[in-house]
Amino acid sequence: MANFLALAATVAIRYAAIRRQSQLKPNEPEPQILDFVTQQHKLFIAIATSHAFSLTATWLWDLYSKVNVDLAAGNTNDLPELHAIACCLKAVTSSDAAGLVERCRMSCGGHGYMLSSNLPQMYGMVTAACTYEGENTVMMLQTARQHFILQDFMTRGHFIRAALNFQTFGCFEAAKRKQGKPLSFTMAYLSDRSGPQKWDSSVDGIIMSFQRVAAGKLSSAVTSMKKYIKSGLSTEDAWNKASVQLVAASEAHCRSFILSTYHSEIRRKAASLSAPLKAVLHQLVELYAIYWTLERLGDLLLFTSITESDVSALRHAYEDLLEKIRPNAVGLVDAFDYRDEILNSTLGAYDGRVYERLMGEALKSPLNAESVNQSFYKYLKPLMQGKL
Amino acid sequence: MANFLALAATVAIRYAAIRRQSQLKPNEPEPQILDFVTQQHKLFIAIATSHAFSLTATWLWDLYSKVNVDLAAGNTNDLPELHAIACCLKAVTSSDAAGLVERCRMSCGGHGYMLSSNLPQMYGMVTAACTYEGENTVMMLQTARQHFILQDFMTRGHFIRAALNFQTFGCFEAAKRKQGKPLSFTMAYLSDRSGPQKWDSSVDGIIMSFQRVAAGKLSSAVTSMKKYIKSGLSTEDAWNKASVQLVAASEAHCRSFILSTYHSEIRRKAASLSAPLKAVLHQLVELYAIYWTLERLGDLLLFTSITESDVSALRHAYEDLLEKIRPNAVGLVDAFDYRDEILNSTLGAYDGRVYERLMGEALKSPLNAESVNQSFYKYLKPLMQGKL
Ligand SMILES: Cc1cc2nc3c(=O)[nH]c(=O)nc-3n(C[C@H](O)[C@H](O)[C@H](O)COP(=O)(O)OP(=O)(O)OC[C@H]3O[C@@H](n4cnc5c(N)ncnc54)[C@H](O)[C@@H]3O)c2cc1C
Ligand SMILES: Cc1cc2nc3c(=O)[nH]c(=O)nc-3n(C[C@H](O)[C@H](O)[C@H](O)COP(=O)(O)OP(=O)(O)OC[C@H]3O[C@@H](n4cnc5c(N)ncnc54)[C@H](O)[C@@H]3O)c2cc1C
Repeated sequence: MANFLALAATVAIRYAAIRRQSQLKPNEPEPQILDFVTQQHKLFIAIATSHAFSLTATWLWDLYSKVNVDLAAGNTNDLPELHAIACCLKAVTSSDAAGLVERCRMSCGGHGYMLSSNLPQMYGMVTAACTYEGENTVMMLQTARQHFILQDFMTRGHFIRAALNFQTFGCFEAAKRKQGKPLSFTMAYLSDRSGPQKWDSSVDGIIMSFQRVAAGKLSSAVTSMKKYIKSGLSTEDAWNKASVQLVAASEAHCRSFILSTYHSEIRRKAASLSAPLKAVLHQLVELYAIYWTLERLGDLLLFTSITESDVSALRHAYEDLLEKIRPNAVGLVDAFDYRDEILNSTLGAYDGRVYERLMGEALKSPLNAESVNQSFYKYLKPLMQGKL
Repeated sequence: MANFLALAATVAIRYAAIRRQSQLKPNEPEPQILDFVTQQHKLFIAIATSHAFSLTATWLWDLYSKVNVDLAAGNTNDLPELHAIACCLKAVTSSDAAGLVERCRMSCGGHGYMLSSNLPQMYGMVTAACTYEGENTVMMLQTARQHFILQDFMTRGHFIRAALNFQTFGCFEAAKRKQGKPLSFTMAYLSDRSGPQKWDSSVDGIIMSFQRVAAGKLSSAVTSMKKYIKSGLSTEDAWNKASVQLVAASEAHCRSFILSTYHSEIRRKAASLSAPLKAVLHQLVELYAIYWTLERLGDLLLFTSITESDVSALRHAYEDLLEKIRPNAVGLVDAFDYRDEILNSTLGAYDGRVYERLMGEALKSPLNAESVNQSFYKYLKPLMQGKL
């Protein structure tokens, strides 16, 4: 998903630096469309998301390797956690990547619809991932089930096990073993029982707030389930009836996890980077954090102490970040370092010769062998002149 | 857009009534996937949205006809309003329809990815509408420009005209003529200066709240613009820098308008309908209203007096509505009355014979002329047996 996002962002951002359209100011030439702030809003998040997913993938791979070593030694402690985080990551990364690749395609206007842009094919590959290897909704519900079990243990020390452990007995047992022990890294925040804290707009503050959201949404979903059970539904029916909320709780968990992994991995890598590069990479982390804060404002207003004036400050911070990233946008996608043969796109090649490639592609059609086709002179012209 | 949504919803809901998958309860057979509440959440909104768009389209057509008659008589009063509402409706309906058609496709799992479902082709047709006949972002900014001009007149009685009227001089002049006069139907609420009111979860209450959101978002965007102008940006640069907010304000306006038109048109038609039919159609209006309340919670929490307990009551109301609509879901899409030839889908035909049609379609491929292809015996089997 990270790689497809990088491909689509490369094509769309290079094209947006070549394509000129509309007027920003009277009597001035048409700007590069990359200078429209709405265009930056569509595209820069794709770069940040590609970085976030790529770093998270490396993290997940490391956990997977560790769990495999543990398993060989008969230790299954981290298996439920690997299961829970892998399920929601599969769903959220494929669904976000599909949305953003399509956004990159549409940001190229009519030319993005052309197969020769290669963007429709990229979308076809990415959207398929929402279905294969575990349908996304089913994956989100797997994560929810794990969390639900853990939460239940933490708050009550027992669980209506006959009902819900039928598919997750192993995980259930593992969760039971955790009783009393601190929860592990990806879910530790679920046991945080401290009260609401002052809103903090730093990336670390936003991460903490997203964790509060995730814990809050899980707890709301569980409250709904309990209400349904109390009103007479079986546990399974209550689970089903609250499942839209359960999916949303898994999503919130996943978003808080991606954001915190993205931030900590960039911070770790930054130690060995030049100051200017560090600055740009951190701008992207901030962009990602604020983008999702604004996208999930309802949750933050419900579960944290963010205020209206914090929100408007964040909008301005976001608008400033787009402006700061703009001069480096083409450099950032060049840095993905995809060869033209791999991009395979009339719109996104390194040399920026978009119109020459579009024309070259069009000329490959037999219909364009002559600039005006014979059929025009033979049939259309006489028809138009009423001589048929 | 309404028609494509109806087509996609027909295919996906019929398929969801045939397809059985997973277990809801131990030792029970696999349910129809339409019984999963997450599946209902994906699909029922598509029915409601098709109704909403179709009724709004008729309303728009009537306004268009009226304005044409007016124009012939030299009266351009309603032209700016037609322009503003048509632009944002074009963008919001195409973008919502694209999202929902794709959601219908994905709700059919792997079979929705097959061309023989006809869902990928429907998506191709609908997503194109986000680009052609006025690219969606450009359309949203047109609406914003009109509203901005009107708001400026209402609050200050004048306008930095040199800067912003270059593309909208006619509308600007029309807006000027409105000075002092009450604003017309689609934008009247922008001049509502009453304070915050108690939250009201009825559809009428939600419509009023959405109007508050639209007015609030426009006013926030204008405040940001003023801040940027004050900090030294030209009006055009300030407009550009606040344009993500301006697009969001247009979208909010459009959503409040679609919702109120949907509700009033259903109410008007309901007079001549049977009580049970009226009940179902009203359930869909409520579903639509609550769905968007939950989708745009951040805005409502910022601009209305909705509270956390209202939100959780709305979630439960939404979950109850899905349950109420479930028994009528197939009937509702049958009522769209598309012939099988038009649906052209292995998954969505009236008789529900999904698997027979899938098999029939597969058998059309020359590769399936024999149940095991010659090439297996000639090449693969010897290879697998190490005899090549
Ligand atoms: C399927 C299909 C069929 C078509 N059929 C026809 C046809 O029959 N006849 C015909 O003439 N044309 C046709 N078109 C072309 C269509 O009208 C254009 O693609 C459409 O108007 C968008 O213009 P564009 O392609 O130049 O995109 P652009 O205007 O280049 O848009 C690219 C990006 O720039 C952004 N942008 C542009 N201007 C601004 C602005 N002022 N502010 C902010 N952002 C901006 C857009 O939001 C978009 O993200 C068709 C297109 C498609 C996809
Ligand atoms: C491009 C592509 C390539 C593929 N390649 C392969 C391959 O190489 N080998 C192979 O074996 N398969 C392959 N598949 C099949 C793929 O693995 C399945 O499509 C996928 O697992 C989803 O299962 P399904 O199609 O049965 O969907 P379903 O499970 O029928 O899903 C349909 C709908 O039902 C819902 N649903 C199902 N169960 C539940 C539940 N418990 N709770 C709530 N909702 C539920 C889903 O959310 C979805 O909305 C491929 C599919 C695609 C699209």
